[in-house]
Amino acid sequence: MSIPPDIGTIAGPPTWVDGAAGGGHDVDHLPYAVFSHGGDDPRVGVRVGDLVVDLAPLAASERDQHGELVRATSLAPLMRAGPRSWRSLRGWLVDLLTDPDRRPGVEPHLVPLAEVTTGLPFEVADYVDFYASLDHATNVGRIFRPDAQPLLPNWRHLPVGYHGRAGTIVVSGTPVVRPCGQRKAPDASGPTYGPSQRLDIEAELGFVVGAPSPAGSRVRTGAFVEHVFGVTLLNDWSARDVQAWEYQPLGPFLGKSFATSISPWITPLAALEAARVPLPGQQPQVLEHLRVAEPAGYDIEIQVRWNGTEVARAPYAAMYWSPAQMLAHLTSNGSSLRTGDLFGSGTVSGPDRSQRGSFLELTWGGSEPVRLADGSLRTFLEDGDEVVLTATAPGRLGGRLALGEVRGRVEPARG
Amino acid sequence: MSIPPDIGTIAGPPTWVDGAAGGGHDVDHLPYAVFSHGGDDPRVGVRVGDLVVDLAPLAASERDQHGELVRATSLAPLMRAGPRSWRSLRGWLVDLLTDPDRRPGVEPHLVPLAEVTTGLPFEVADYVDFYASLDHATNVGRIFRPDAQPLLPNWRHLPVGYHGRAGTIVVSGTPVVRPCGQRKAPDASGPTYGPSQRLDIEAELGFVVGAPSPAGSRVRTGAFVEHVFGVTLLNDWSARDVQAWEYQPLGPFLGKSFATSISPWITPLAALEAARVPLPGQQPQVLEHLRVAEPAGYDIEIQVRWNGTEVARAPYAAMYWSPAQMLAHLTSNGSSLRTGDLFGSGTVSGPDRSQRGSFLELTWGGSEPVRLADGSLRTFLEDGDEVVLTATAPGRLGGRLALGEVRGRVEPARG
Repeated sequence: MSIPPDIGTIAGPPTWVDGAAGGGHDVDHLPYAVFSHGGDDPRVGVRVGDLVVDLAPLAASERDQHGELVRATSLAPLMRAGPRSWRSLRGWLVDLLTDPDRRPGVEPHLVPLAEVTTGLPFEVADYVDFYASLDHATNVGRIFRPDAQPLLPNWRHLPVGYHGRAGTIVVSGTPVVRPCGQRKAPDASGPTYGPSQRLDIEAELGFVVGAPSPAGSRVRTGAFVEHVFGVTLLNDWSARDVQAWEYQPLGPFLGKSFATSISPWITPLAALEAARVPLPGQQPQVLEHLRVAEPAGYDIEIQVRWNGTEVARAPYAAMYWSPAQMLAHLTSNGSSLRTGDLFGSGTVSGPDRSQRGSFLELTWGGSEPVRLADGSLRTFLEDGDEVVLTATAPGRLGGRLALGEVRGRVEPARG
Repeated sequence: MSIPPDIGTIAGPPTWVDGAAGGGHDVDHLPYAVFSHGGDDPRVGVRVGDLVVDLAPLAASERDQHGELVRATSLAPLMRAGPRSWRSLRGWLVDLLTDPDRRPGVEPHLVPLAEVTTGLPFEVADYVDFYASLDHATNVGRIFRPDAQPLLPNWRHLPVGYHGRAGTIVVSGTPVVRPCGQRKAPDASGPTYGPSQRLDIEAELGFVVGAPSPAGSRVRTGAFVEHVFGVTLLNDWSARDVQAWEYQPLGPFLGKSFATSISPWITPLAALEAARVPLPGQQPQVLEHLRVAEPAGYDIEIQVRWNGTEVARAPYAAMYWSPAQMLAHLTSNGSSLRTGDLFGSGTVSGPDRSQRGSFLELTWGGSEPVRLADGSLRTFLEDGDEVVLTATAPGRLGGRLALGEVRGRVEPARG
């Protein structure tokens, strides 16, 4: 895979931003969001330490060329601009935030993180969700189809995926109303309709497409970094009872489409250079168009907290399929890409029980409850429960980047 | 189902437009499109006879309130405005086109159809495809799973559906590049990657959502006409070899996502009032939230022409699930609707061989070739083949409405 040079990979002087050096939001991270402050219109910001840089007025005051990328109420213009612009903007920001002489020009454009609100950072075009964890696919196969081989014959030959609903992707903090749906118990004579009894999460990474590609062409695995702008945490809320009844033969639909939560903060792909690791290994070897130059994986650990109790640490490094392979597969039929396309990794699960990124797996289909810190036992989500996903990854400055969290609380079903 | 009164259902004086009375584009039809003429910007038009009414300047010259709905390069503002506005605009148009005194004011804003080009009439938000024909689902089940029951247990209890790719929906006339993909012959040791050998069509109706609905609410079957703006023909191009290998367990993905064609002309739902017919019958009775007041079906016949030879006449009246039930199911988990959401019926097939809306069914998985007028035998699509879908439905003035055609020619695969 050819990686464009990133100015952020060259260790330079430390940042002058108080409290930022060595933390999860040092200048080796610099995630983007769309934020509001004091009732102003939404604008593009970048986080450093516990501050948000208000980019458009900063660029204007510096008479800087990058202003045109960030004078918007969405990240879309920046995302669309492509890797040269991403690299250039990031280099400019690192310079500004590490050169003490530039501090006076920047400081008027810093806003305390605690004073801002954040929204969806871009309009999602098409949303695709993959199924790229060998451990997750094996666990789900065992739970849903106990009498059959857990992995279907295609699983090791292509990254299985499907389209989800873009219009119900919501930003972290948005309450999740318990969905109703049709489901049928195995021993029931017919289905019933009502609130889901098996509401679950899926801890995932979401990859955000910036630069589009035309119909009839393909994005090779080596061009992944030319198209993908960044990464967000993603919670693919799932109603397992609805899903189990509906999903054959055309796949998951209403069991997933009621809500999918993402972080407002998008971590640039360049910030994850130090997190790259080889894949665990693919047997049999994949077809030529899906081959990748290693390292193609990412060492990102997702923490899952359920009402404050950490119930899992899911290792993205254990994923079977790399994101570059997912994107190459997605476009291998000539499908075009649009700015704002989002693809999820599928649930991140590792081989250990403590590494499972869904409650379906953690409780083995509801048969092995999880004990929370308050002593209560849980299988699936109850009304009022809150789930928070956080994640860390090694940065180039020695600390660990803290990816933007994804938080959601379950509200009761509505009639 | 409560149907809002439609001025078009009251027979009035005949249109003064030459050649329009009694044809497929009389004033009981009036489909909308976005068109360009003589290099001008795209604008909203309505078809009557072989003419297109240029709506925005007409409304301006008449100082009419409807101008705000049609001063756009997309149908989206009109679609979003909802059923009162749709009804009102339609009533105004019928008045204009049937009152001879208004002819002088309208004529300057008529453009010959032959001089315009048409594009995608709106930006597709989310695209969902259903599987609502009993005959199609039974045929496909028999072909794909010959040793099992053709209908899965859920099929008669809910309209099975899944999300497709909105970004690859194209307007009629757009060439379709043969997709490449991964497929595996049953007796092969492993998969290969290359151009699809089983490229197919699916003749469908597409339903266009105009008025949105909020997250956490449901659109009941009776509110169908409050949200759906109109109907288009839809060809869901399908690579059967790719689909057969990829589709388990998460459903069709790359076998469908390379291209879906729709007509540029959207037939308003109100124009199809005279086409309403009872459903063929649902056994067992569906759950309460999916019940409909009859007539909930539509008597629309789709003609399929392959290189000029008519190979099928697919009767929409034979569909098991009504579009009102599809929309109620889609939102039964609280999923929101956006202006521009599009849902397809799934392949329209009837009980007779001549009524099958896909080549998979017409040739029974490729085992029974179809003879075209030039004497050639076909199973699946060859490079250079052209497929044209047309459709007719009874109008209130005694003739048959001619829905906007969907045309596409297959181009060779690209490396």
